[in-house]
Amino acid sequence: MTAQGIVSLDRPECLQLLQYKAFLGRVGFLDDGRVQIAPVNYLADENGLVFCSPEGSKLSALRHGAQVVFEVDEGTPFEHSGWSVVVRGQAHEITDPTDLEYLRRGQLKSWAVPPTEHWIRIDIQEISGVRIAAH
Amino acid sequence: MTAQGIVSLDRPECLQLLQYKAFLGRVGFLDDGRVQIAPVNYLADENGLVFCSPEGSKLSALRHGAQVVFEVDEGTPFEHSGWSVVVRGQAHEITDPTDLEYLRRGQLKSWAVPPTEHWIRIDIQEISGVRIAAH
Repeated sequence: MTAQGIVSLDRPECLQLLQYKAFLGRVGFLDDGRVQIAPVNYLADENGLVFCSPEGSKLSALRHGAQVVFEVDEGTPFEHSGWSVVVRGQAHEITDPTDLEYLRRGQLKSWAVPPTEHWIRIDIQEISGVRIAAH
Repeated sequence: MTAQGIVSLDRPECLQLLQYKAFLGRVGFLDDGRVQIAPVNYLADENGLVFCSPEGSKLSALRHGAQVVFEVDEGTPFEHSGWSVVVRGQAHEITDPTDLEYLRRGQLKSWAVPPTEHWIRIDIQEISGVRIAAH
């Protein structure tokens, strides 16, 4: 990139930020040919991330193997610094009863969706990120 | 929506949040058939928003009238509260010299892009938002 002060992050840095430095991410996907962005609470491990989706929401478009993008970021206005991590992968609904039970009593409490709703997993196929240093 | 504690915001509330409560937004767009999400610093008025795009970046896909989505949000983890506003509209490059001069000496200083770079405007065609109250 030609822009000033931007550093690309390697995979371990991206995974660290995704796993431990954000609680709210944005899923980007196609719905009827239109790009959608939906904010979700999520939890990530080294291979993927999970979030809840209520019945009937636009996110239901994701249950059957859609290719999606997932973005997390953080900015500090005073310093004009920040970072952003983008994941690309396939979304699918989690249907295994053991996995679902684990998730439903687990750490992730969505602010908007009861844990009895659908759970979507995005497996990480690509992950990249940038950091803008304070300047 | 069936989700708990979610309230839809009317247009004036959405415009207030877009204009005064966020400094970092995310543009969602199609690039070679793939959904992209790119974080940008922006400024908004009641009709649209502007941001900088460096030469050669993925955002250059936006210069010629692409349909895009733009999202801003804020979350308070302790309260499990937050809001999100989504704009839908057409992106185009600003080429009028007077407008460009105004923008280049104006209020928006992108953290990542020199102000001499390209400026993109998204005119608001649709705007919607939700708030999750503390619970």
